[in-house]
Amino acid sequence: MNNVKAAVCFSCGAEYEAGNDTYACKKCGGVLEIVYDYDYIKTRVDPEKISARGEFSLWRYLEFLPLEEGSALGPLRVGWSPLYRTEKLGEALGLSNLYIKDDGLNPTSSLKDRASAVAVVRAARAGKDTVACSSTGNAASSLAGAAAAMGLKSFIFVPERAPQGKVTQLLIFGATVISVRGNYEDTFRLSAEAIEKYGWYNRNAAINPYLSEGKKTVSFEIAEQLGSLLRKAGAARGGSGAVPAKAFAAPDYVAVSVGDGCTIAGVWKGFKDLYAAGFIDKLPRLISVQASGCCPINRAFEANGPIERMEENTLADSIAVGVPRNGGKALAALRESGGLAVNVSDDEILAAMRLLGKTAGIFGEPAGVTGTAGLKKAVERKLIPSGAVVVSVVTGNGLKDVASAQRAAGIGALDASSGGSGGGAPGAAGGGGPAALLRIAPEMKLLEKEFARRGIRV
Amino acid sequence: MNNVKAAVCFSCGAEYEAGNDTYACKKCGGVLEIVYDYDYIKTRVDPEKISARGEFSLWRYLEFLPLEEGSALGPLRVGWSPLYRTEKLGEALGLSNLYIKDDGLNPTSSLKDRASAVAVVRAARAGKDTVACSSTGNAASSLAGAAAAMGLKSFIFVPERAPQGKVTQLLIFGATVISVRGNYEDTFRLSAEAIEKYGWYNRNAAINPYLSEGKKTVSFEIAEQLGSLLRKAGAARGGSGAVPAKAFAAPDYVAVSVGDGCTIAGVWKGFKDLYAAGFIDKLPRLISVQASGCCPINRAFEANGPIERMEENTLADSIAVGVPRNGGKALAALRESGGLAVNVSDDEILAAMRLLGKTAGIFGEPAGVTGTAGLKKAVERKLIPSGAVVVSVVTGNGLKDVASAQRAAGIGALDASSGGSGGGAPGAAGGGGPAALLRIAPEMKLLEKEFARRGIRV
Repeated sequence: MNNVKAAVCFSCGAEYEAGNDTYACKKCGGVLEIVYDYDYIKTRVDPEKISARGEFSLWRYLEFLPLEEGSALGPLRVGWSPLYRTEKLGEALGLSNLYIKDDGLNPTSSLKDRASAVAVVRAARAGKDTVACSSTGNAASSLAGAAAAMGLKSFIFVPERAPQGKVTQLLIFGATVISVRGNYEDTFRLSAEAIEKYGWYNRNAAINPYLSEGKKTVSFEIAEQLGSLLRKAGAARGGSGAVPAKAFAAPDYVAVSVGDGCTIAGVWKGFKDLYAAGFIDKLPRLISVQASGCCPINRAFEANGPIERMEENTLADSIAVGVPRNGGKALAALRESGGLAVNVSDDEILAAMRLLGKTAGIFGEPAGVTGTAGLKKAVERKLIPSGAVVVSVVTGNGLKDVASAQRAAGIGALDASSGGSGGGAPGAAGGGGPAALLRIAPEMKLLEKEFARRGIRV
Repeated sequence: MNNVKAAVCFSCGAEYEAGNDTYACKKCGGVLEIVYDYDYIKTRVDPEKISARGEFSLWRYLEFLPLEEGSALGPLRVGWSPLYRTEKLGEALGLSNLYIKDDGLNPTSSLKDRASAVAVVRAARAGKDTVACSSTGNAASSLAGAAAAMGLKSFIFVPERAPQGKVTQLLIFGATVISVRGNYEDTFRLSAEAIEKYGWYNRNAAINPYLSEGKKTVSFEIAEQLGSLLRKAGAARGGSGAVPAKAFAAPDYVAVSVGDGCTIAGVWKGFKDLYAAGFIDKLPRLISVQASGCCPINRAFEANGPIERMEENTLADSIAVGVPRNGGKALAALRESGGLAVNVSDDEILAAMRLLGKTAGIFGEPAGVTGTAGLKKAVERKLIPSGAVVVSVVTGNGLKDVASAQRAAGIGALDASSGGSGGGAPGAAGGGGPAALLRIAPEMKLLEKEFARRGIRV
């Protein structure tokens, strides 16, 4: 890998060759970071060259990825998810330049596909025929799907409380699922032992430094797609002065939900890569959004202190991480970027689900929309100027967690109210106006009556 | 619309101007078909011109769509779903040139997004602020999502038995959902009355001739993506003789699941458009796959007779249509293409879910994988030569119906067998080898024992 210099420990600075068995720091156990040779990268690519490529997936950015030359790439189309300019959502939030990156449209419906795509390519290149991780969620399904497409076996360790729906997806992808009678710590420990014993490729985000390298591609796409949209808008206005000089452009702010810390660290790494290679002229400020019931990273950021374990009290299961393994990297990203930390309640998360659905036609899972929920709060508190160019990343598809969507839609409440209490506006609290579920017999006059009674404009 | 000549009744041949209120035939009630001026279209575009475009969505093919010039296009990224060359799945099926088009990666996770995208653009252009349809499934969610993104209101009529999960998605998109105490016929009738009374835009597939025009874009993409893959493969082999002359290429066969008939009719229309405009040199043969428990179109095709109502006995809910409203168009497509009809059992559908997951990393809903299930059967019956270039369209995402995925994964059976009966291979029946769910205490020696007992290679 001519583009990679080394893997450096984020905690103690120890340096390693970026190889196949390079996981955590052998000295202090810290998380490693992949360090690139940007001078070399600049000799190979520039913004216009990448923009002209016909490859529309994360492999578009190969020169920035830690893959041996000639590696067989995974066949699934991971990445190149859409970046939408969302004017109505922006109006609702008080932002005149809001964009949503919908990463729920990846192959297994979450941003984690980016990390697993890199993992399986490295695993196959290293001659491994099996990959493994411990997870109940999006990391597991993304790994199982990517492994199946790549022709690798996968072993996934889940705590016994893992939801059957999520286990189902793993089995469909042909994974061997080990349901461990114990908690997540027991599960993680058994997976580590088995990976060690059998020599499988390790895709535990706590350990594998290549995962955030996959995740960083979301920032590459944000910058390239934003640059393209700004150029088009500039061209439409006719003023050449407003057209960005480069094909890539950094937003002013990026809002992202935070659990383990790996994703926000990846987002930051992506923008830093682009900046170091001269693709963008500034860096964005990060907005780290956590659930109030589980916000160890944000708490440490606000207190300027160490990360301390928290309970995991939130329905946003994908970010319910009481002991974040990539917390150090996340904190550093927040600080370096001059970022903000915002915590939101579960009700604010559910309201953001409705708001994204109603104003933008985007259906995100709770953790997927948490970034947007935090953005709303940040604007309300005047932490962000209304004219800022802001990108909010939706990290997972709402179909992943229909039970929470039912809570968001307030179906239970509507069941009770449909008898005659009127209103039926579960969306009202979250803004964006009412949604409604009417139950009636098939007669037009009853429908008219019901519309009138509820004040529904037709 | 300079590219459109007329809307012609598919049953009686009556001709209408293709306007905003052009729905069913005013003389015989038949379904209309949009007829294009291919000579005009040829003056505007050619294959290379389209291939050079930077727009990666169904709007890439604007010259072939029935949209007034200057219409505001929907903002969601509908279409340009991936076409995968799936070698391992091909091996499992006995096909050396198999491709999967994964349309489950659309914004609301099904192919129906293509139809709704066209519907909301036409609605907005006609000055309507409200769209409506009756449906319990993918048509409804796609319309609600597209309307929300477009800034239109949506009214969706569902029979009271509609699954809560699907109703939830509609509410998240801000639709007003009318749950009708009655069956589907009652629901449809009430929706028709309300649409008439309130002047809403009508997105009922039984009536709106523009929907299959949206769906046909899946064929445009298949031809363009296949052409690109064949060119790359030819270039890799170095033999210029093997490289297709055109940027677009038709496969030999396209397999698609069939319910109402609108989708397969749209697929056929797409290829016919390309052929008429000189983009492809031949037409594919269609493989219509229905569930054995509900196959009125295939039954009529085999018997060369009229379509007769059938019960709706299949778990593939999206194609459980006993009285197909676009059956005539579907039959004509099958006949014109020299196509095949194949029926599959629910067990074969579940097996196809496992096979696609395990060999290709693709997770489809039951109706979504029914085309692939039928393809398997067609190859087994030697109805298709093993070297044929075949595309199978996956029409919807597996996350849409987790309960069926659980049946496919055989989780219930595994629950019973995990005590000690061994095996645990729910995937065995469907080919592609075993998937397994192991339940154990967190001890390495128990894990080793379990692997040995089950014969799991690690």
